[in-house]
Amino acid sequence: MEQLAERILKGELRALARGITHIENDHPEKQALLTTLFSRTGEAHVIGITGSPGAGKSSLVNGLIKVWRKEGKTVGVVAVDPTSPFSGGALLGDRVRMRDHEEDEGVFIRSMGTRGSLGGLSEACKDAIRLMDASGLDLVIVETVGVGQSELDIMKVADTVALVLYPSGGDVIQAFKAGIMEIADLFVINKADLPGVGQLKGEVEDLLHLTAEQKQWKPPIVETVSIEGKGMEETVRLLNSHYHHLSESGENREKKITQLETEITRRMKDSFAGEISSLVADELQRMAKAGETPDPYETAETLYEKWKRQLADSPGHGN
Amino acid sequence: MEQLAERILKGELRALARGITHIENDHPEKQALLTTLFSRTGEAHVIGITGSPGAGKSSLVNGLIKVWRKEGKTVGVVAVDPTSPFSGGALLGDRVRMRDHEEDEGVFIRSMGTRGSLGGLSEACKDAIRLMDASGLDLVIVETVGVGQSELDIMKVADTVALVLYPSGGDVIQAFKAGIMEIADLFVINKADLPGVGQLKGEVEDLLHLTAEQKQWKPPIVETVSIEGKGMEETVRLLNSHYHHLSESGENREKKITQLETEITRRMKDSFAGEISSLVADELQRMAKAGETPDPYETAETLYEKWKRQLADSPGHGN
Repeated sequence: MEQLAERILKGELRALARGITHIENDHPEKQALLTTLFSRTGEAHVIGITGSPGAGKSSLVNGLIKVWRKEGKTVGVVAVDPTSPFSGGALLGDRVRMRDHEEDEGVFIRSMGTRGSLGGLSEACKDAIRLMDASGLDLVIVETVGVGQSELDIMKVADTVALVLYPSGGDVIQAFKAGIMEIADLFVINKADLPGVGQLKGEVEDLLHLTAEQKQWKPPIVETVSIEGKGMEETVRLLNSHYHHLSESGENREKKITQLETEITRRMKDSFAGEISSLVADELQRMAKAGETPDPYETAETLYEKWKRQLADSPGHGN
Repeated sequence: MEQLAERILKGELRALARGITHIENDHPEKQALLTTLFSRTGEAHVIGITGSPGAGKSSLVNGLIKVWRKEGKTVGVVAVDPTSPFSGGALLGDRVRMRDHEEDEGVFIRSMGTRGSLGGLSEACKDAIRLMDASGLDLVIVETVGVGQSELDIMKVADTVALVLYPSGGDVIQAFKAGIMEIADLFVINKADLPGVGQLKGEVEDLLHLTAEQKQWKPPIVETVSIEGKGMEETVRLLNSHYHHLSESGENREKKITQLETEITRRMKDSFAGEISSLVADELQRMAKAGETPDPYETAETLYEKWKRQLADSPGHGN
């Protein structure tokens, strides 16, 4: 595992791919790998790109990659979106666009499914992003469909979140309701050659008054036609500008601390859950045998107190 | 609160509505209400209805309600689907259909948003279902869009899960990838007057070979045209037939125990998280001041052990 970590740190894409597979499969040495690499993360600009299916997220990512590659930057992509051609989930999706980068050693694309990641999708994504980061990629893009709690959790890992909209109606309100408006740092109105751009822009601006009033960073709105490459440079410029804002304002550091707090708490909860599982199972079995149906509210309280008492009484603790 | 519980048990719909509002707002007496009512749950047939937007879930629910009402049964609906006209989330949605039941005292419809439920949407839904159950409604329907972990968690509360599909392609694979196929007890092919029904049915059957091979209950497939009321009686018949299977096979009891185990564990985790929060926050603040970035993997382990030691040392425990 030491060797794999070293190869990842050197930027070997094959090693990176293997490392991510270890994460997905919950390999026994996964934790050791992550601990080794953690201190080498924090250099990549992690960008979350979200939006409903059909918004054109993948062609946008493609267009952005072209700009970055011209600037000599390396790019990693984690595609979680089941409708993305990157993730391989699109039945009708054209895979043509992927070929643009197939031979490019400076681009690493990895799809992550909603199945197969034992520790939960958002955790696996977070770890995959860290591996890409540690491997020295300049940019790490996470592409998700903007629905569901786990997608929202994934977005929270990003330094910069771009919400991709297109003129069609309904999208903005959906995003607002899902809580995405609050975390978006940039609004991309894609397919801006379609009618209705002005109205969509108005809707975004109205909702921004509600969500970004207090924020130091006012999320800008950019218009793009990603399949024609229009607006790509401007989008890259705005993403960079947000990244600069983050480090200058100290928000970056704050955000990282909040994320770590959440993650540490979750990990501790998992350890805890592992330790109580047999206690809970035994109690339920006992009740089932007795023909009782446990009230989950009371039972949880009782068992929690019981566990704590047992812990305090057990040898090896208490001094 | 005692009085509210009594009124809910009597089946007063206004009391039921108020109780659900208490749940959504995390009212201080929420827990007491739920504990009081819990022993009176377990009588309703809880049916989860899921499927992608556009599958026609709402008109299906409407059609089913008509059949049940003819049979004299009372129905509660929890609409979580943001695109459902029941939930009020549909911008373009027709609210005409709702009017069908507006004056009917035997139908109770409640929408629950993805925002505003402090304890998490799936928990709030679960509790709302319990209240409806305790109030004596014969059937409780939960309608969700089939995406995301929290929607999947909600479906797991149902006795019977119906997945609504329509001839369009892609749907089945999406459902399969999201893990819905495994939990579906009935497949409804809605809009069965459209071309492509045969192909869709074939796809479902193929995937059922993969997911339902070992199961005692082979999920049937029913064709409906819900806006014309076609296939509604047959759907009700199959839903009933699954409910009978559950109680006869003892699966019902097993399922309930598994659900309770998950819920009790989650509740204990929440209590635990509440107790460790200051420990985690303090440690992060200390590290931030020292300019260190904590490795979440190691820090979680260290803090967990520390918390257990503290607990064992604290007075009031240990004897």
